[in-house]
Amino acid sequence: MGVVVALDEDKRRRAAGIAPLVALVAGDMEKVNRLILSRTGSEVALIPEVANHLISSGGKRLRPMLTLAAARMCGYPGEGHVALAAGVEFMHTATLLHDDVVDDSSMRRGKLAARMLWGNSASVLVGDFLLGQAFKIMVDVGSLDALAVLSDAAAVIAEGEVRQLAAANDMATTEDEYLYVVHAKTASLFAAASEVGPILAGRGRDERAAFRSYGSNLGLVFQLIDDVLDYAGDSSDLGKRVGDDFREGKITLPLVLAYRRGSDGERAFWQRAIETRDIRDGDLEQAVALMKRHNALDDTVRRARHFGEVARDALAPFPDSPHKAALLAVVDFCIERAY
Amino acid sequence: MGVVVALDEDKRRRAAGIAPLVALVAGDMEKVNRLILSRTGSEVALIPEVANHLISSGGKRLRPMLTLAAARMCGYPGEGHVALAAGVEFMHTATLLHDDVVDDSSMRRGKLAARMLWGNSASVLVGDFLLGQAFKIMVDVGSLDALAVLSDAAAVIAEGEVRQLAAANDMATTEDEYLYVVHAKTASLFAAASEVGPILAGRGRDERAAFRSYGSNLGLVFQLIDDVLDYAGDSSDLGKRVGDDFREGKITLPLVLAYRRGSDGERAFWQRAIETRDIRDGDLEQAVALMKRHNALDDTVRRARHFGEVARDALAPFPDSPHKAALLAVVDFCIERAY
Repeated sequence: MGVVVALDEDKRRRAAGIAPLVALVAGDMEKVNRLILSRTGSEVALIPEVANHLISSGGKRLRPMLTLAAARMCGYPGEGHVALAAGVEFMHTATLLHDDVVDDSSMRRGKLAARMLWGNSASVLVGDFLLGQAFKIMVDVGSLDALAVLSDAAAVIAEGEVRQLAAANDMATTEDEYLYVVHAKTASLFAAASEVGPILAGRGRDERAAFRSYGSNLGLVFQLIDDVLDYAGDSSDLGKRVGDDFREGKITLPLVLAYRRGSDGERAFWQRAIETRDIRDGDLEQAVALMKRHNALDDTVRRARHFGEVARDALAPFPDSPHKAALLAVVDFCIERAY
Repeated sequence: MGVVVALDEDKRRRAAGIAPLVALVAGDMEKVNRLILSRTGSEVALIPEVANHLISSGGKRLRPMLTLAAARMCGYPGEGHVALAAGVEFMHTATLLHDDVVDDSSMRRGKLAARMLWGNSASVLVGDFLLGQAFKIMVDVGSLDALAVLSDAAAVIAEGEVRQLAAANDMATTEDEYLYVVHAKTASLFAAASEVGPILAGRGRDERAAFRSYGSNLGLVFQLIDDVLDYAGDSSDLGKRVGDDFREGKITLPLVLAYRRGSDGERAFWQRAIETRDIRDGDLEQAVALMKRHNALDDTVRRARHFGEVARDALAPFPDSPHKAALLAVVDFCIERAY
């Protein structure tokens, strides 16, 4: 019973962190959701089936919320931010569909991954469709500067994914090399989603750079905490099983830290499990124990806090506003997911 | 010996068909090739390896040539057509990488498909990278109208691929349903590649529609002849083995015609081979024999001629020019590939 209460409290605390943002953008978000639904429609039934399986599976829609809030915080009066936010979510969804194929993942957001239900081919092609739709929607907004930022993100994300593929299962990966991948595959879309807000509002270089920095560092926080949750999380909350990264041999920061701080014997364990993918009963528990012994999980959270502070400072020059307060609270929300 | 001479003559005749276009755009095409090479560069070595494997494998680059010639024919004096042409080729290359994964293909343009050398994951991700680069390059040109046409094509292509996937191995596919797929997955990029020429040149609705129609119908010709060559071609010339479509259970027009014109016994043969994929020794020869019996190959070429005439008429209102003559000759070139 005590545990159940603790979990409820946890959830309340987390909810408080993102609630102000959700409330501020609720009206715009409804328009985003309508646009998303209308643009996954197709005579080809497989497209809405696959797309909606993932889109309606209850992601937080953090990235489009960043676009909506950033645009309004910068005083943008129009409606283009709705379309760009939908485009950002489509880009993200396309990436997830392709990621699941690349990683051979079986679960996504607590449901079977689309590839398990419709196959790899459908996941690849519906991902391509969503990427095409993303660009169509975003082109309609008519901002070449926003398009440049978002198409750049699309190329950087894919480059980061290839880099990760090439470094897959390589325990020699350094913290810097791993962060480079996270910058590309996660932070770049957070950065672009945030930067298009001031772009739409016609703000100058400094404000664009500030939002870009906020988004990029928030993306780093988000990914590092995700890495922690994969070893220390609660499956029901996470939508994937604890240990998925481990079983897939994915290099993440807790693993990099534990490996580099470990003894020769421990490194032999990591090499067997991650590099040769020879995973035996009890290995996941052993991995978590080694991470705890070397403070690898706690220190990953500390690294995330560092980036969270950079994100907060990026928005410091802006006058106080409900939108600013909400965006700052999201930084805390992302970190507190770890607890 | 006689056969060898005949082949040489054949090749000369075909070469004459595309030679004027190649000559007219040679200078611009060199710039396109330089841009393509510079934009596949990446610190991540896997990206240029996979991309250049396909890009340097001697495709005809027909699509970018359409963009270059259409822009110049419409009097465009700038350099943006070079970037759009490179973007079109990147979009096409991304599609090929993903297609090979979806179709489990082993060969492409006479070489091993990228997926056989680097795996499906690399093919998916490098395809995504090229698509991202395509949009980056095209955004830099600064034409929102051109971007709208090209992003629309990206979405339509993917939709067509999903439709084809959903209809895979279904012998009940009608000629109209099949043509709908070809419109989407092949003709739409030919159409977009052509239409962006007059767009860059600031031409109006009528001229845009004319080039769109030319490109779209040329795309239909191209695909239908490709379908014929898969049953009647010469492997060394085609870059894939004769019978690949048959072995993959791919629905193409010669197969649709032969099936619908066949006896009950023949339809049982097609259903076994295509729908249940139970392919036995001698089946390919039997398939070709049935196609010949029902004139399915000849009539597919006749259908292609029909679309070729529509393509030619689309450009009829334009005054004579070397570019117009070259674009008309390409229609003949595409049809004559069948002989």
